[in-house]
Amino acid sequence: MPNAALPPLSTIGILGGGQLGRMLAISAAELGFRTHIFCPEADCPAGQVANELTVSAYDDEAALKTFAGAIDVATYEFENVPDSAVSVLENSVPVRPGRKPLAVAQDRFEEKRFLNRIGVKTAPFAKVDTATDIADAANETGLPAILKTRRFGYDGKGQVKIDPDTDHNKVFAAIGEAPAILEGFAPFERELSVIIACGVNGDVAAYDAAENEHRNHILWRSHVPGAIPADQSAKAGEIATSIIEALDYVGVLGVEFFALPSGDLLVNEIAPRVHNSGHWTQDAAHVSQFEQHIRAVAGWPLGDPARHADVVMENLIGDDTANWDLIAGDANAHLHLYGKSEARPGRKMGHVNVTAPLGAGVTLD
Amino acid sequence: MPNAALPPLSTIGILGGGQLGRMLAISAAELGFRTHIFCPEADCPAGQVANELTVSAYDDEAALKTFAGAIDVATYEFENVPDSAVSVLENSVPVRPGRKPLAVAQDRFEEKRFLNRIGVKTAPFAKVDTATDIADAANETGLPAILKTRRFGYDGKGQVKIDPDTDHNKVFAAIGEAPAILEGFAPFERELSVIIACGVNGDVAAYDAAENEHRNHILWRSHVPGAIPADQSAKAGEIATSIIEALDYVGVLGVEFFALPSGDLLVNEIAPRVHNSGHWTQDAAHVSQFEQHIRAVAGWPLGDPARHADVVMENLIGDDTANWDLIAGDANAHLHLYGKSEARPGRKMGHVNVTAPLGAGVTLD
Repeated sequence: MPNAALPPLSTIGILGGGQLGRMLAISAAELGFRTHIFCPEADCPAGQVANELTVSAYDDEAALKTFAGAIDVATYEFENVPDSAVSVLENSVPVRPGRKPLAVAQDRFEEKRFLNRIGVKTAPFAKVDTATDIADAANETGLPAILKTRRFGYDGKGQVKIDPDTDHNKVFAAIGEAPAILEGFAPFERELSVIIACGVNGDVAAYDAAENEHRNHILWRSHVPGAIPADQSAKAGEIATSIIEALDYVGVLGVEFFALPSGDLLVNEIAPRVHNSGHWTQDAAHVSQFEQHIRAVAGWPLGDPARHADVVMENLIGDDTANWDLIAGDANAHLHLYGKSEARPGRKMGHVNVTAPLGAGVTLD
Repeated sequence: MPNAALPPLSTIGILGGGQLGRMLAISAAELGFRTHIFCPEADCPAGQVANELTVSAYDDEAALKTFAGAIDVATYEFENVPDSAVSVLENSVPVRPGRKPLAVAQDRFEEKRFLNRIGVKTAPFAKVDTATDIADAANETGLPAILKTRRFGYDGKGQVKIDPDTDHNKVFAAIGEAPAILEGFAPFERELSVIIACGVNGDVAAYDAAENEHRNHILWRSHVPGAIPADQSAKAGEIATSIIEALDYVGVLGVEFFALPSGDLLVNEIAPRVHNSGHWTQDAAHVSQFEQHIRAVAGWPLGDPARHADVVMENLIGDDTANWDLIAGDANAHLHLYGKSEARPGRKMGHVNVTAPLGAGVTLD
């Protein structure tokens, strides 16, 4: 019964109302599902396209129970969902991907320990609970290194660089004296990611690896194919497969890699959800990562992740959407905007997928 | 000013809440627009995915005025919108495609007169206002012929075949004694359609012609490419272009053709909206007919209608959706369901686009 496929018209509950939830809700609607968003903000991007919206805090147990009673399966669009919220939902409905991937992905220390335990390489790291731990940690990781909070970091938030002359008390204060890890610097040649999915019956489907470029610690562009040697791309897919299999996972998982000059791949982090570097799949793969995730959480067979075009995804951040008219006039550009009213600096407002025929390569201005 | 492009976050109002409105609303959301559906039924397919839904009758002038005040542009998803409703909206906002195409498409007699006037061939036809007109009309069209109400017909409704021995009083009663036309039988070899769009600045973009198969007077399958000779396909595109240009049109228009054994093309009918035989564009064209229509009504440049795959669209009618699990398991099948709770016989519940690489041809079971 827990593995039975949900029929169309079933209701998929999504914790989180941002752009990932929005694109999940759209894909769910295309497959004939109803959607119910649980989000603390009214008029959130996902609520605009969903059948139902509950505006409530993630620690409102009564609201969570009512939500659980109105849906057939639950998923989440961000990894900082409180464990307590998932516990409440699990009493009534399956929650996919579930708590284990959340527990691993919410804590950078646990995440790296898990990865190393299953034989996946990461940058060197060490636990930092107090400012005085930093010196010992630096002996393990070498310097420069990055001090990162164990929890609640994203897009470079909660991170500080440590050099030999850095004041340890100051940097620890700068990250709020929160439990942290020190992470050795990976002298990478490029950054890649693999979007991979696992269905309820254990079938796994990986998309082609993307080469990613960041600006200001925020993903800027994903190139598929990027300048990634074929064997490295294949290796990234194998590592992603080993991770998703070890997590007993249902849904889409994003895996970010550092590729070293030696060709070695280190895993930077994993995201137990659809991932920004997989947005290219909307316009260049047979099934988008959003439909793939919905298929998985609904217990449907996975779709075909094969790529039918070359593509570059570019995030539209802050004021970037002021150029919407230029993008709208480019025949190769597929525009996706998130319905956000306010364009704050650093805020992800949309993205554009620029496509070219398979093998032709995308030309950017 | 009327031709200025609407920026993202503008609100597109859609008269009609069926599956066409649903797919328009989804495409509008992808481009960052807000949508507001006006529809007499609550929980209509389009309302499920829209920002706002007004549940009201099309002759409720107060509701229409409120709706007009809440939107930036209006469009419609069906051609039987009352002219009075469009009049009310036009006082406040542009209505695209507008009243002229509606007036032409709502009346089979006016439609055929318009087409002939601009040099487009149709089957022979004659006006029938009373049962006694049928004999004279039959002299013009020949027999067998089809008696069709001038207004409100779709999917074969309001149509009766006339043979030499048919009782004229009975058949006229059968169509409710409504104003009608008698239409000569077109001995067609195949049926085709062209989906074409015109932007606010007059730019025109046509999709590849589809070969259509009907069952029980309802579209069953569209094949792109079909078994259509290249010159016939090109000719269909030219005719569709001449029609859209004569209508001073903004938006997507569907044009249905009969191809005769001689190679001649007759226009069967035109639909001033996105069209069922254009659903294939969702999974096999760079821009779907739904995004194309939204681009046009928002005053944006048209997108690229080029096809990137071979495709067969099959409608899922009535109980057909009971096979959703088989379709979900077919890697080449792209499922689109409309969120309708009740599967009545003849009701369009969804469709599936089966794709193959460009030039490879689609293999169906």
